[in-house]
Amino acid sequence: MQRLVNEFIGTFFLVFTICVAAVYGKAGDYAPIAIGTVLVAVVYAGGHISKAHYNPAVSLAFLIRGCYISAKEMFSFMGVQFLGAVVAALLAASFFKGDMEVSAAEISIAPALVGEFLFTFLLVWVIMNVATAKAITGNQFYGIAIGFTVIAAIYSVGDISLAVLNPAVAAALTMVGKLSPGQIWIPIAGSISGAVAAVVIFNTAHPSEECSTSDDSTCRPIDEE
Amino acid sequence: MQRLVNEFIGTFFLVFTICVAAVYGKAGDYAPIAIGTVLVAVVYAGGHISKAHYNPAVSLAFLIRGCYISAKEMFSFMGVQFLGAVVAALLAASFFKGDMEVSAAEISIAPALVGEFLFTFLLVWVIMNVATAKAITGNQFYGIAIGFTVIAAIYSVGDISLAVLNPAVAAALTMVGKLSPGQIWIPIAGSISGAVAAVVIFNTAHPSEECSTSDDSTCRPIDEE
Amino acid sequence: MQRLVNEFIGTFFLVFTICVAAVYGKAGDYAPIAIGTVLVAVVYAGGHISKAHYNPAVSLAFLIRGCYISAKEMFSFMGVQFLGAVVAALLAASFFKGDMEVSAAEISIAPALVGEFLFTFLLVWVIMNVATAKAITGNQFYGIAIGFTVIAAIYSVGDISLAVLNPAVAAALTMVGKLSPGQIWIPIAGSISGAVAAVVIFNTAHPSEECSTSDDSTCRPIDEE
Amino acid sequence: MQRLVNEFIGTFFLVFTICVAAVYGKAGDYAPIAIGTVLVAVVYAGGHISKAHYNPAVSLAFLIRGCYISAKEMFSFMGVQFLGAVVAALLAASFFKGDMEVSAAEISIAPALVGEFLFTFLLVWVIMNVATAKAITGNQFYGIAIGFTVIAAIYSVGDISLAVLNPAVAAALTMVGKLSPGQIWIPIAGSISGAVAAVVIFNTAHPSEECSTSDDSTCRPIDEE
Repeated sequence: MQRLVNEFIGTFFLVFTICVAAVYGKAGDYAPIAIGTVLVAVVYAGGHISKAHYNPAVSLAFLIRGCYISAKEMFSFMGVQFLGAVVAALLAASFFKGDMEVSAAEISIAPALVGEFLFTFLLVWVIMNVATAKAITGNQFYGIAIGFTVIAAIYSVGDISLAVLNPAVAAALTMVGKLSPGQIWIPIAGSISGAVAAVVIFNTAHPSEECSTSDDSTCRPIDEE
Repeated sequence: MQRLVNEFIGTFFLVFTICVAAVYGKAGDYAPIAIGTVLVAVVYAGGHISKAHYNPAVSLAFLIRGCYISAKEMFSFMGVQFLGAVVAALLAASFFKGDMEVSAAEISIAPALVGEFLFTFLLVWVIMNVATAKAITGNQFYGIAIGFTVIAAIYSVGDISLAVLNPAVAAALTMVGKLSPGQIWIPIAGSISGAVAAVVIFNTAHPSEECSTSDDSTCRPIDEE
Repeated sequence: MQRLVNEFIGTFFLVFTICVAAVYGKAGDYAPIAIGTVLVAVVYAGGHISKAHYNPAVSLAFLIRGCYISAKEMFSFMGVQFLGAVVAALLAASFFKGDMEVSAAEISIAPALVGEFLFTFLLVWVIMNVATAKAITGNQFYGIAIGFTVIAAIYSVGDISLAVLNPAVAAALTMVGKLSPGQIWIPIAGSISGAVAAVVIFNTAHPSEECSTSDDSTCRPIDEE
Repeated sequence: MQRLVNEFIGTFFLVFTICVAAVYGKAGDYAPIAIGTVLVAVVYAGGHISKAHYNPAVSLAFLIRGCYISAKEMFSFMGVQFLGAVVAALLAASFFKGDMEVSAAEISIAPALVGEFLFTFLLVWVIMNVATAKAITGNQFYGIAIGFTVIAAIYSVGDISLAVLNPAVAAALTMVGKLSPGQIWIPIAGSISGAVAAVVIFNTAHPSEECSTSDDSTCRPIDEE
């Protein structure tokens, strides 16, 4: 239960910052810094509780990784992540939109798919290493590595694909009008395929990192409720 | 005594940087970076001495957390924090105001209360985790997590509520004219309610983290004088 | 083999970010931050796998350092680094160039050589210390130290020499037209001479750090395939 | 000897970045970030070698601290720091000045003295804690804490006093014309008085941190030559 509370809080603040700082433009050109720093903060605050996914594509990657999460837990995680994102978008829209007109971003499909795929690949490649590789178990740089990946992603492909990298964020951006309903499949397809590709390559290239929920319960940081 | 000296120094430099970099505009759009980096610095410099509260709302949260500070100490901490903030504001106004006219920010009550509540909630949620959770005792990322939270907060709601998050900072901002006397209740109410909500949820969701001053003296990093 | 996979991935994302954020200008003035943060991320993601060179000049420095890599491995590393850089440049040009005209930077030879030499010297001096010095073995700040060096380099000499610091990046920048074929020798000469100078001074000034592949196999983090 | 080599290299790159990024304006508004990130890098690269002073005011503070350095060593350190600063200023002026006219900053004495005093106080307060306090011996955040202090300082009082904080930097800035010979006493007086005040308060407030070169040789990280 505390894992789900943490996933809600982390996803909520990530999406709330995205909506207020980037969509409603309060942070201007500094929005990537606002989003990256809040992600560093919530990853460090909650990594020890729930592994700090805050992203359905990341939860799927942890499932494919072979331990840390069961399929049933993954769906609970995803549900809470979408809930946190929806609540954050509603709250941001209610109090911080003002009289701003939000129009859907202009997105070219091919570059946007490539951008979402590549940077979600990188995000999950980074997470699989800093959060699950045995050689660096117990490291304390995971929050910086993850948050800095997102800063780089937004500065690189933010203008091209919004650098969504996260299906829950995609849902929130559609709610607030920054993505049109016809565009939402782009970040969802790009982020999920990028996440799956990264974890499959990770598992394939690093056979010594193999683990599975059934036979290696020790790699689960926190017991299920 | 050394805890109080440290709280004075930390709060002084936090507020001094806020006044010079943000209120008197020396840092322009980079003020959130100046404030966040100075907070990282004073948290790392003084975390081992006084837990680096530098904020009456945080001291209250530590009291509710159940250990680390007694009610009597909390009031001493708060007194010193306000003293540091007042001295910093006076010094900044005396030497760095120049001929600048400072006028109170235009603040809409509802969004400002929401902004102050939410980001103080996040700040205290982060602090309770990185500074008191047993699973990550001894971590070294607490300063980055705390300082980065404030960077994200200022870039997100700085234009809406000034992102005060701290009653001592609210007092200083009122002294230098950035908040009017009629506005000071907004950040105070928002920050205290956000801090209380965060620590209550933390205590409720994490029963295994329970501790209290009376029965668990080991969680007190430094003895009282 | 997994070392080579990691060198490919790390160099790919470093060069891809350079092309999209800096050459195609998506990040504007923030390109150095995008490049520095992605470097922090890939160094933390892959340091435990391949020592995270991502740079032929760094691989040469590790060879001169006397352990960590053999001459044969070094050439494999370099080949994969150039491959990753080329693929990244092709992908970036295919999907993110749009209708932008890229013209070669105006570069004055002497300042550019000095800039490339000095900041590659610093980069390799930092790497030799944070990644190989015995007194700080096991430190976790190596990614920040390395990435921040590159942020400082680009903000300092980016206008003068492009702050390439890396022969594989030089090749990619030539492919996308930011360096002319007549200019490519400048960053290559500057970065290799800077790297060699740094590691020679490191080895000379720190005799207690001596190690060699043949007699000290323990300093090799990962066995050869 | 290797300590002196490291002090030369660290001070050289700090001053070189200051001259190129800030004085010659290559980094524009990002100069504080360039300077702060290079300082993080050289502190992490050389902290284990020489404690990474790179600043005569800091070396004086370490002497007053009571261990880590003898008076004779301090003067060697200072000599090498000034040498590194002078060489960096000469090199920067020779290759990166172009046809730029550098004129001395307009500085009001009282605010500049206060700014230099306060932020050097903070810098030395941070250093004494993160680099010498027994409770956090072996921490790895010292580089971030020190570098971030300087970022905050430059964004806060850079326009007022240049945020020099360092007599060797003051000498270099005078050489390149950013300080007039009649102004150099301001940062020197401010930085030395701030450093002395910080270490005296540190020693007084923390009697348990007492140490001295004569009776506690264990606190010396590296033997003298």
